[in-house]
Amino acid sequence: MIKYPNGKTVNKTVKINDTSRRGMTLEQDLNQSNSYYLELNKAVIHKKPTPVQIVHVDYPKRTAAKITEAYFKTPSTTDYNGVYKGKYLDFEAKETSSKTSFPFASIHPHQVKHLQDVLQHGAIGFFIFRFSVYDEVYLVEASKLIPSYLNDKRRSFTYKWIQEEGYLIPSSYAIPVDYLTIIDKLYF
Amino acid sequence: MIKYPNGKTVNKTVKINDTSRRGMTLEQDLNQSNSYYLELNKAVIHKKPTPVQIVHVDYPKRTAAKITEAYFKTPSTTDYNGVYKGKYLDFEAKETSSKTSFPFASIHPHQVKHLQDVLQHGAIGFFIFRFSVYDEVYLVEASKLIPSYLNDKRRSFTYKWIQEEGYLIPSSYAIPVDYLTIIDKLYF
Repeated sequence: MIKYPNGKTVNKTVKINDTSRRGMTLEQDLNQSNSYYLELNKAVIHKKPTPVQIVHVDYPKRTAAKITEAYFKTPSTTDYNGVYKGKYLDFEAKETSSKTSFPFASIHPHQVKHLQDVLQHGAIGFFIFRFSVYDEVYLVEASKLIPSYLNDKRRSFTYKWIQEEGYLIPSSYAIPVDYLTIIDKLYF
Repeated sequence: MIKYPNGKTVNKTVKINDTSRRGMTLEQDLNQSNSYYLELNKAVIHKKPTPVQIVHVDYPKRTAAKITEAYFKTPSTTDYNGVYKGKYLDFEAKETSSKTSFPFASIHPHQVKHLQDVLQHGAIGFFIFRFSVYDEVYLVEASKLIPSYLNDKRRSFTYKWIQEEGYLIPSSYAIPVDYLTIIDKLYF
């Protein structure tokens, strides 16, 4: 059962037939979607750079500065944010090769705290989950996900829970993860 | 002449007497201000990580992944964004040791384009400039700065222009660059 934002539910899953997209990561698909939104002048949403702790930089003559020692840092916020129809929009995106669930461990507590914070200030906050085996991408509102994350003893979001509580995101060649259509139906 | 957002102008400059802050960079002061805003539950505003192109990573056994070759990338957006009173807020911050002006070259064309984009979608967008020799920090609205950046033959923002078109940002021990007081007066 897939729940659409207009309240309709259907029993069949919608398969994405665009074979050229196979092998693209969720990040690549989101970057392409966001570029297209920007080009259409629909929204300004960017992925934040990967946070890196820079320890040592070489400054060779006549060439660009070269970072020779650095480490990945734990992100303190979500990966994506921006502005859509005057509203601040903020989300985290994750993909899994599991057929059954997303472990809570794949989401940093910092990111949950950050989404709690922005919701308090009137943001639209959500998670995007891709089940790569099904080629399905779902949007789950942060307001639904956070209570489960904080209280659920199972410590994972099941595929069934995400299907029931989330919304299947449509896909097209130009906009592989067209999440703003879901946002439109839920908020505007 | 310093113009305050309430329309008053005064002839004297406001000196910051908190000597413990000397030597702090604008970035450090903004990070501290943003942390305090977050702690007060007033706003959620973060600096984006420095964008880095990662070329090579070592994965040693039993220790953290080490980036051994990476380069700085030109930022495609501004450094700071977040949410305040339901609005998307976006800004770039620069400091100079010059007594007279900021060269246009210190601002990337991408950043100006980004601020133009977000303004179209209802964002609050601005620049923060520190003149370190005067220990003065100004907020200039993007809507004022962009036309000058695009058309002005001088190719720099003079201290005089920033004083006239911008707003002097107050400073306190806890909030070294208290720019939201200016935003409150201008937008709320």
